Amino acid sequence: MLQRYLPILTWGRHYHRGLLASDLLAALIVTIMLIPQSLAYALLAGLPPEVGLYASMLPLLAYGLLGSSHSLSVGPVAVVSLMTASAVGGIAEAGSISYVQAAALLAMFSGLFLLLMGVLRMGFLANFLSHPVIAGFITASGLIIALSQLRHLLGLPGQGDNLLEIALSLGQQLDNINGYTLAVGLPVLLFLFWVRSGLQPLLERLGLSAYTAAMLSKAGPVVGVVLTSIAAAVFELGDKQVALVGQVPSGLPSLGLPTLNHPAWRELLSSAIFISVIGFVESVSVGHTLAAKKRQRIDPNQELIGLGAANVASSLSGGYPVTGGFARSVVNFDAGAATPAAGMFTALGIGLAAILFTPYLAYLPKATLAATIIVAVLSLVDFSILKKTWNYGYSDFIAVASTLCVTLLIGVESGVACGVFASLALHLYKTSKPHIAVVGEVPGTEHYRNIQRHNVITHDEILSLRIDESLYFANAGFIEDRLYALLEDYPHSRHVVLLCTAVNEIDLSALEALESINERLAERGICLHLSELKGPVMDVLSNTDFLQQLSGKVWLSHHLAVSGIAAAMNQQAAADSNWDI
Amino acid sequence: MLQRYLPILTWGRHYHRGLLASDLLAALIVTIMLIPQSLAYALLAGLPPEVGLYASMLPLLAYGLLGSSHSLSVGPVAVVSLMTASAVGGIAEAGSISYVQAAALLAMFSGLFLLLMGVLRMGFLANFLSHPVIAGFITASGLIIALSQLRHLLGLPGQGDNLLEIALSLGQQLDNINGYTLAVGLPVLLFLFWVRSGLQPLLERLGLSAYTAAMLSKAGPVVGVVLTSIAAAVFELGDKQVALVGQVPSGLPSLGLPTLNHPAWRELLSSAIFISVIGFVESVSVGHTLAAKKRQRIDPNQELIGLGAANVASSLSGGYPVTGGFARSVVNFDAGAATPAAGMFTALGIGLAAILFTPYLAYLPKATLAATIIVAVLSLVDFSILKKTWNYGYSDFIAVASTLCVTLLIGVESGVACGVFASLALHLYKTSKPHIAVVGEVPGTEHYRNIQRHNVITHDEILSLRIDESLYFANAGFIEDRLYALLEDYPHSRHVVLLCTAVNEIDLSALEALESINERLAERGICLHLSELKGPVMDVLSNTDFLQQLSGKVWLSHHLAVSGIAAAMNQQAAADSNWDI
Repeated sequence: MLQRYLPILTWGRHYHRGLLASDLLAALIVTIMLIPQSLAYALLAGLPPEVGLYASMLPLLAYGLLGSSHSLSVGPVAVVSLMTASAVGGIAEAGSISYVQAAALLAMFSGLFLLLMGVLRMGFLANFLSHPVIAGFITASGLIIALSQLRHLLGLPGQGDNLLEIALSLGQQLDNINGYTLAVGLPVLLFLFWVRSGLQPLLERLGLSAYTAAMLSKAGPVVGVVLTSIAAAVFELGDKQVALVGQVPSGLPSLGLPTLNHPAWRELLSSAIFISVIGFVESVSVGHTLAAKKRQRIDPNQELIGLGAANVASSLSGGYPVTGGFARSVVNFDAGAATPAAGMFTALGIGLAAILFTPYLAYLPKATLAATIIVAVLSLVDFSILKKTWNYGYSDFIAVASTLCVTLLIGVESGVACGVFASLALHLYKTSKPHIAVVGEVPGTEHYRNIQRHNVITHDEILSLRIDESLYFANAGFIEDRLYALLEDYPHSRHVVLLCTAVNEIDLSALEALESINERLAERGICLHLSELKGPVMDVLSNTDFLQQLSGKVWLSHHLAVSGIAAAMNQQAAADSNWDI
Repeated sequence: MLQRYLPILTWGRHYHRGLLASDLLAALIVTIMLIPQSLAYALLAGLPPEVGLYASMLPLLAYGLLGSSHSLSVGPVAVVSLMTASAVGGIAEAGSISYVQAAALLAMFSGLFLLLMGVLRMGFLANFLSHPVIAGFITASGLIIALSQLRHLLGLPGQGDNLLEIALSLGQQLDNINGYTLAVGLPVLLFLFWVRSGLQPLLERLGLSAYTAAMLSKAGPVVGVVLTSIAAAVFELGDKQVALVGQVPSGLPSLGLPTLNHPAWRELLSSAIFISVIGFVESVSVGHTLAAKKRQRIDPNQELIGLGAANVASSLSGGYPVTGGFARSVVNFDAGAATPAAGMFTALGIGLAAILFTPYLAYLPKATLAATIIVAVLSLVDFSILKKTWNYGYSDFIAVASTLCVTLLIGVESGVACGVFASLALHLYKTSKPHIAVVGEVPGTEHYRNIQRHNVITHDEILSLRIDESLYFANAGFIEDRLYALLEDYPHSRHVVLLCTAVNEIDLSALEALESINERLAERGICLHLSELKGPVMDVLSNTDFLQQLSGKVWLSHHLAVSGIAAAMNQQAAADSNWDI
């Protein structure tokens, strides 16, 4: 029992020196990657840079104790930082104490919500966010983030929740671009793009192993940070209106509960739910992908508990909402992380950095951080999902396109809500107007298929219908109408057999429709039969008196139904003709 | 084309004297029934009594021109009146001009929304309100209405949107009960209850035909109105704090647009949507029931247009939201109404009454109207749906119970929203965790059934699985997990055949899951096959390269799949043993 909720008791028992070496090396590499990223994402969230570092310590320890993935690296991530900015920006002024407090409270709410979902084993809810919706959302968020960071690169103030607002705010200030800031940011941006694509091949050509080359190229952002900090100090860029990170408190965060009675706690609570869901889905999909490569499995409900604990820990140590990030988890995995201990060592690394290196951050230009964000998020932007869904089917396409548009034009929370709503509504719409096929016997088999697609044998007086959906309130009326319409096309029918292979459920509204169909057919002298009813459906119907009222029978298979009815009709005909004699 | 949108062009062409006689008689009976009802429902909606009469004139003419039902009687109804009171009560003071204007604007919004739905042919949306949800809602509304009218019977002020508020408000004022009011209301209440159950049998025993007896007993409320008005005038009850209807403007309503720039038009718009949906669903279900008795059909989209026009007409003539009522439509039907002309004649009858009888309404006690409402709505209260759904299945029961509770405890709009949400959420929840059966051959047939329910033949190396649901984003992950778990129970499987009879759709998320299943099974040396894929699903998959990647085949029927795979395996085994020799 305890083992189930504390995965560390399972993997910790078999921990040995070989695993320790792998985990330490992975931790070192992830730490180097994480320092600039944590600072940058704090900037994106509108928070002081040290908050990013705080969110990369305790949360990693908490996830290490409770999380089920062996490769996931938890901390600040781009999309959640954007959502934090959007949630807190509406209720507190950027840079104020109230803003920092609201972000910590957001992490607390988010953590408690995730823990609650985990205890209630509600991890399955994440399945209602379809892959296309997530892909559309991530792409749109990446664009918004990249554009929002452009202002730091240009040395302009201003903000906004969606693409329009940000573009408008930038467009109005193009005259005020700070040349010095751009002179710092643009080279870093180009350097980082080159690092991403060109550095690793170069290092390999220089004779390094593929692994070493890949790991070294992860240090690109750190190089950018160090070089531009030195440049800012030497050329006194701070005096030339180049925004610098400035004084950062040194050392570890102090622990304490966030201010729980924030005046806007209701708004924060609803935002926390959105952030939790998005963070959870992102984290679980990364976790699943990486676990599958090692033939491991992760437990979504345990992930809820791990991520919930990480967010509560973040809140208690002055951080903001965190989740398992894609890029850093892949680096962690590639660097050879063997157990969740790698994440715990990373936390120690970030802690050391916070103690030793914070004084040097004073000269770091914000433009450098913005450049690292832009390069990171543009790799998330991928419009191919639009083409893929367009070729596949209209409902997936509409779900992606609406998520993308609403996220870009209105904002992140509306985008997610719209995507979930659109995909569910389209699914329900389809099930409310199900496909109904008239079927006949495939010659030489006992199998029945659509008469419009196959050469099949039919029987004039037996109308065989396959209803391709469960019968429930949303389609009960439609099916009733379609059935009467079909009877007009097949006026010689004396028996209607519903082939129920696709009927997984019959709810009370649908039962009432079936009862009315049964009655109205009986009035016209037509028998209603059901075939291939599934066990669970049969169980429910047996509790009602519908099966007694049914004018026809329930048949084990459709073939038995058609041959049985035909035999009975022949017998009847024979009896009638005997009578005539 | 014009005929489709103007049903009067169809039935009007064959109108003759026989139909006229039936329609006139029905109109007379409905008019007599409708006068007290219109006054009473206006009272329930918090409006002056003449507004009820206005809502019973033009709307009936408009529906007569455009509606598709031959029996429906349109006008003020209980539930819509309650919803009007709840919507307008929140934004204007009862009895004020603003209140009356808001009610007219509500009718305009409601009418335009219904017309829009009709033009867009969105009538199917009403199907998403399941029968149990409607039953729960109507019962709860009936209780709220009855309790809310109790105050008029007791001569107390006060109001409320839900059972708790109303009961509390009544309970606090029990000391102030007005004995005279109760002395008027209670006898009327008892008289009307007796009329409902005892008058018709009595009249039949007195020698009247069943039809005449039934129709005469519909005049019960009018008798109550006349007698108590006389009593109020004679005993000067108005001076004894008995609330009377008071001066009512005589004559027909003046026509004109409602005040469109009402300050709270946004709130009214959202309420109008709720009212439209509820009104439409109530009207269509009555219309369907009555049409079925005459072997006629109604067209839900045309009904949207008819009801939309009726509401716009109501708004233009100083009325409030209307719909097709259950009780009056049944009376209209029973009285022999043959065409929508009956409703148009009823409108003329009400118009005559408004011109001739309004002066006499001054002495009518409100308690009399309250008594007619209580008797009418208590017949809507029916808790048997709770027992019925309890016996049938948990999801229908939860939908009813939550609708009932939320309507009673919070209010009508929340109740409807909760019912729709609960029933859809439960449906989606079930489809997100579908039943998966391991199937085997029923001996002597080509039919495959669940091994746990039937004695079937299975094959050690072939695992046959029937997935009882369409594959879509909400269940793709679940199905993947279940499949791997099942493979652990059947370790000898070398072929997995998915029997796809219940798979009506495979969306992009599910396709990705299938691709990953296919790959992971291939890694373990297991072939994935699909059988009995339906035409529409096959069409979609043919556009992708999944069928080329599939390690196994797609088979026309499951029997062909199992026998084909078994034959291939035997051949392989024979070839292997030849080699050994």
